[in-house]
Amino acid sequence: MGIVVQKYGGSSLADADAIKRVARRIVETKKEGHDVVVAVSAMGDTTDELLELAADVSPLPPARELDVLQSAGERISMALVAMAISDLGFTARSFTGSQAGVITDAQHGKAKIIDVTPGRVVQAIGEGHIVIVAGFQGVSQDTKEITTLGRGGSDTTAVALAAALDAEVCEIYTDVDGVFTADPRIVPSARKLDAVTYEEMLELAACGAKILHLRCVEYARRYDIPIHVRSSFSHLDGTIVRGSIDDDDHQQQETSMEAAIIAGVAHDRSEAKITVVGVPDKVGEAARIFAALAEAQINLDMIVQNVSAAATNLTDISFTLPRSDGQTAMSALASLQSQVGFDSLLYDDKIGKVSLIGAGMRSHPGVTAKFFSAIAEAGVNIGMISTSEIRISVVVDEVDVDAAVRATHSAFDLDSTEVEAVVYGGTGR
Amino acid sequence: MGIVVQKYGGSSLADADAIKRVARRIVETKKEGHDVVVAVSAMGDTTDELLELAADVSPLPPARELDVLQSAGERISMALVAMAISDLGFTARSFTGSQAGVITDAQHGKAKIIDVTPGRVVQAIGEGHIVIVAGFQGVSQDTKEITTLGRGGSDTTAVALAAALDAEVCEIYTDVDGVFTADPRIVPSARKLDAVTYEEMLELAACGAKILHLRCVEYARRYDIPIHVRSSFSHLDGTIVRGSIDDDDHQQQETSMEAAIIAGVAHDRSEAKITVVGVPDKVGEAARIFAALAEAQINLDMIVQNVSAAATNLTDISFTLPRSDGQTAMSALASLQSQVGFDSLLYDDKIGKVSLIGAGMRSHPGVTAKFFSAIAEAGVNIGMISTSEIRISVVVDEVDVDAAVRATHSAFDLDSTEVEAVVYGGTGR
Repeated sequence: MGIVVQKYGGSSLADADAIKRVARRIVETKKEGHDVVVAVSAMGDTTDELLELAADVSPLPPARELDVLQSAGERISMALVAMAISDLGFTARSFTGSQAGVITDAQHGKAKIIDVTPGRVVQAIGEGHIVIVAGFQGVSQDTKEITTLGRGGSDTTAVALAAALDAEVCEIYTDVDGVFTADPRIVPSARKLDAVTYEEMLELAACGAKILHLRCVEYARRYDIPIHVRSSFSHLDGTIVRGSIDDDDHQQQETSMEAAIIAGVAHDRSEAKITVVGVPDKVGEAARIFAALAEAQINLDMIVQNVSAAATNLTDISFTLPRSDGQTAMSALASLQSQVGFDSLLYDDKIGKVSLIGAGMRSHPGVTAKFFSAIAEAGVNIGMISTSEIRISVVVDEVDVDAAVRATHSAFDLDSTEVEAVVYGGTGR
Repeated sequence: MGIVVQKYGGSSLADADAIKRVARRIVETKKEGHDVVVAVSAMGDTTDELLELAADVSPLPPARELDVLQSAGERISMALVAMAISDLGFTARSFTGSQAGVITDAQHGKAKIIDVTPGRVVQAIGEGHIVIVAGFQGVSQDTKEITTLGRGGSDTTAVALAAALDAEVCEIYTDVDGVFTADPRIVPSARKLDAVTYEEMLELAACGAKILHLRCVEYARRYDIPIHVRSSFSHLDGTIVRGSIDDDDHQQQETSMEAAIIAGVAHDRSEAKITVVGVPDKVGEAARIFAALAEAQINLDMIVQNVSAAATNLTDISFTLPRSDGQTAMSALASLQSQVGFDSLLYDDKIGKVSLIGAGMRSHPGVTAKFFSAIAEAGVNIGMISTSEIRISVVVDEVDVDAAVRATHSAFDLDSTEVEAVVYGGTGR
């Protein structure tokens, strides 16, 4: 049997008892005959506590030292997990990101993994040890500085290790049972998916499903590493994320044809919408607007430009962006008004985005129409529309998000026959 | 001006405010024109908290993982100190023991420093940065594992860095004003020493003065690094520990001739006494007893063997040892009784040791007599006696320790004219 990489987040490592439970879980996998490599996050609130200390010491701490500070969190949890495993009669070796060969660029706080050179990990596996690696951290290639990977970093560490070790699977343990057809807090009849494709998972993550981070799924897709998203609180199978879903999965899911087309309904309440009203419809005006936003380091999501009214030759440009960037974006645009000569700016942060995602919709022309009529029947007005090959997203009023999600979920026959009691929470780092 | 190495212990780094105070102190030294390298311990109770977590997870955690765990403590404090310095407008770079080139053997929990290769520290100094190094930790030479140095480790880190960097001085910041002629809690008129020799400091440390650890003083003596022991809560000069004390120091101290002979009076209440009664006075019997104790890894302190009584040809052997080793030693000896054929074992842990220390006593024959008569006049009975070139130690009843210390301190005119209000506490790690 091959190598299994597992990742446990902070909520699975909240205290000594939780750590012991994780250790038993790891040992079970080892007993099945697998070699096991584990990426861990910092325990529960450790990172927040460390950042609070930093804020007490300096209002603007240097990024290098913030990374040194935060990296202590995984050092603590990895040692404790290794101890708990040893207490069960198995041997474990813990390694920092640097020791495990997680080589990154030098962008403190949001470093990208450049390479993984897991020589010490491979050696420890060869000696029969279970290996525990600090997630979320690495060492910069040229300067040998301690770096952290930013949000979703521990998941990415796990997938990167799985790729470098040619692992069978990367198991991401979390506090939910897997990936659902919708947030069960909104749609109690939401169904756990047995499998989704990388592409679907990417769209789900981009559209607000917080279960896996975009970059970790991108990494897994690039190296074709199957991810098994599952609960650390149960032994149920979770959701497999992989390149293609074969017929077996479809039959196992025992779903209708529609369900094979659609993976799920995602929603996102973290965005705001800005409309630039009355932009002269000339070559280069839109470019100037988006250049200014890029310079302010703002990531835009949906962008819509209406055709210009023939009478005035003016057009409106709307886009969505993270609410946290709203103030910065409005300032950047306001300072551009005299140059571009637009009429005014509208800002709306009472919006929500509802997205329908499924690789099967490529070849099923009726999906868009069904989606829109479901939302219409629920009495919800659509503000913006944006589509990709395997996704349709609409912006609606924030208060209408739940109704739109439920209506869509039901229209595409995604409802499960039994109600599952799960919490659809966010991931840690 | 040259390099100054400073060391701050856990009590000087208890919280954010303490860390900011330490940062100001470091910056003051930098402003004077020195290059500054700082070794830090973990904050206040961090190490205890981490060890408690370890105990919750496993009753007998592997030493390797305990070192990984504990090393997180200095990683936190070093980053916070660097941040606080940056907040004062200076740049700092923090390095782990491994990054700073603190190379050790592979004995987890009590590693010895083999070499210091401070390439990154030197480079950072050259770039104008203040350098913060994690005390107490290193990396093993062959296996590249994280190690910790055991008790007194951070002091040793500081002295080792000072030696490797050819520093002017190694300043050890603590919660007392320096080295005193006796514990001021027992002798309120105890005087701070301006200077002591390495040898005197070694004897003081070995005899219960907890201000500096033996190994750190040994290291400083080997590389001839002056240590300045001083308070992090005041700007007073502390005590200089160095190879020889010149006339200037004597004049500065404005002390009597006696005070130049005697450095101080130390005491120790952490030992117990074992007497092996009725040992046959034959060649090799004592050796068998001490071989058994050595095998049980027990460090003995004073050893006394009386001449044997002519009638019986039996002798008594007494020795002192750490109380914590008492049970182990008694078991080891009991299992030896039938072979050696001694009569019985006596165990006494209600003892204390009082020691008079001073390099000058070598050439002053009257010191021993004066010491004994001072103790006698205080009505204290002497149980055991042991001497070195620059030290006389006696074992007395535990309750008589204070009286013996005061009487000795006074007999040798060590009393200061003004009473200093200080706390004579232990060192951290």
